[in-house]
Amino acid sequence: MELVTIDDIRAAAERVRGTVVRTPLLPSPWAEPGRPLWLKPENLQPIGAFKLRGAHNAIARLDERRRARGVVSYSSGNHAQAVAYAAREAGIPAHIVMPDVTPQVKVDNTRGYGAEVVLVPIADRESAACELAEKLGAVLVPPFDHPDIIAGQGTIGLEIGTDLPEVELVLVPVSGGGLASGIGTAVKALCPAAAVVGVEPELAADARASLRAGALTGWPIEDRARTIADGLRSQPSELTFAHLRAVLDDIVTVSEDEIRSAMAVLATRGRIVAEPSGAVGLAAYLHRADELPRGRTVVVVSGGNVDPALLADVLAR
Amino acid sequence: MELVTIDDIRAAAERVRGTVVRTPLLPSPWAEPGRPLWLKPENLQPIGAFKLRGAHNAIARLDERRRARGVVSYSSGNHAQAVAYAAREAGIPAHIVMPDVTPQVKVDNTRGYGAEVVLVPIADRESAACELAEKLGAVLVPPFDHPDIIAGQGTIGLEIGTDLPEVELVLVPVSGGGLASGIGTAVKALCPAAAVVGVEPELAADARASLRAGALTGWPIEDRARTIADGLRSQPSELTFAHLRAVLDDIVTVSEDEIRSAMAVLATRGRIVAEPSGAVGLAAYLHRADELPRGRTVVVVSGGNVDPALLADVLAR
Repeated sequence: MELVTIDDIRAAAERVRGTVVRTPLLPSPWAEPGRPLWLKPENLQPIGAFKLRGAHNAIARLDERRRARGVVSYSSGNHAQAVAYAAREAGIPAHIVMPDVTPQVKVDNTRGYGAEVVLVPIADRESAACELAEKLGAVLVPPFDHPDIIAGQGTIGLEIGTDLPEVELVLVPVSGGGLASGIGTAVKALCPAAAVVGVEPELAADARASLRAGALTGWPIEDRARTIADGLRSQPSELTFAHLRAVLDDIVTVSEDEIRSAMAVLATRGRIVAEPSGAVGLAAYLHRADELPRGRTVVVVSGGNVDPALLADVLAR
Repeated sequence: MELVTIDDIRAAAERVRGTVVRTPLLPSPWAEPGRPLWLKPENLQPIGAFKLRGAHNAIARLDERRRARGVVSYSSGNHAQAVAYAAREAGIPAHIVMPDVTPQVKVDNTRGYGAEVVLVPIADRESAACELAEKLGAVLVPPFDHPDIIAGQGTIGLEIGTDLPEVELVLVPVSGGGLASGIGTAVKALCPAAAVVGVEPELAADARASLRAGALTGWPIEDRARTIADGLRSQPSELTFAHLRAVLDDIVTVSEDEIRSAMAVLATRGRIVAEPSGAVGLAAYLHRADELPRGRTVVVVSGGNVDPALLADVLAR
């Protein structure tokens, strides 16, 4: 299987410039001794999550004929907003298939970017999107299972390696694996000595199980749906799993309470708003020190689209 | 009176590089029609506020002999943390005089950066700091009333003018006026057609009164202390007032409810945590459109050091 390369990621970086925010690394004076910490705040992208990088890269590569028919996508939320936003920037129509359990804020935002939203039961989202794309003659932009998506998300790793070449550990959330595949590919190319460790909720730790088994190990969607981290309920494809095996040093897991607590720390000490999925990296930094290499650490905060009531609840504890 | 120049600000930018985060401009897709909006998130500085820029610039200019005796400062909070952090980075001792009504989170953070904190009644803070500096033979780093401080804060305007030369309106909080003086000086030099408008709480609108009167118009500290925006309770000095008259097009005021509501919007749509003082610019954008020029707008979010309970309360409404 052909893997995405650092050259693919460099090409993606050229494409996304201007639409994607070049996020800074935020030094964290409250870091633990011997483990200096920087946050990579991808929640600050215009749609509130890193997904814009991959979606924009994929759409920017479409030719004129395919652009005219627009794009279709399916997503639990942030990828939906990313495709909607990138399509609007490119001036092409977008249809987004979303699970009917998606937080309302994500549905509203996706519609706000001008996309047509179709709500379906969570198990049907992929098939519904495929049917719709076929009917419309539109291109399907998948959430993670495509080299253009992986290369787009990899631009985060390119920025980390450029801004902090002496990085020793990068912590990155794992769901479908596009983010970790891309970041891992870039970081290993630029900083071969750095460890790249994925983070999953304990309640959706299928990728960890797969890495340990050496083969894709599916978890029922009903199990994965238990975690508060609604952006981390997907599981890797053959393509992303091949990348994860090549570039991840390990995957660690965090509990639901640890995720909530990390959200509060990000708000109070980091002054940024993370959704649960975006907080798992910091949760691992704070609560899994014994399973992680020490040294200069970058935590990727992948997104910040959270219901205000949940954030208020986490802060009030 | 000699005013700070764009050259002073350029020199400050060289000094603060590396210690200060080069914050991006964050495009806001939720902006109102005809008023594209970017946030300048100074809450993302390591100490959670822009104050690090001026403090670092002032300390970086001290000679070796003066460094050895350390620095003293007085502040309602963020400047205290800024001096403490910048002093630690420079390897010199810092004593900080704080009002005894300062939010505990700011006292704790200041001590966390290694500074000695001295709590005094709010009216005594300046005199207590002067006495302490004299006793120790240390240099007093004032919160705003110094050209080095103004030049340091002005680096924000330099970045705005560099990143968005076509900016048409910059909204900036006004308290002692160092921030607005510096930003206004830089923006007017780089983008002469842009308007620079200050924002104050209605309950601490002394600078607006002064601008209208054409002379410094003091408000009693008891009046200014009413606003929730605890970082905006100071009033300009002769030096900053001279700058404000030269570079501000206007000052508008916002209510306490508007400040709270802007904090919630920054958290949910901007995915950043602002303290009340940091939210006044967005409050003006959202609620004072009729008093402001239209067009490409940058809102300076000056800080994010807020008590978690207050943020939770604002989000739960």
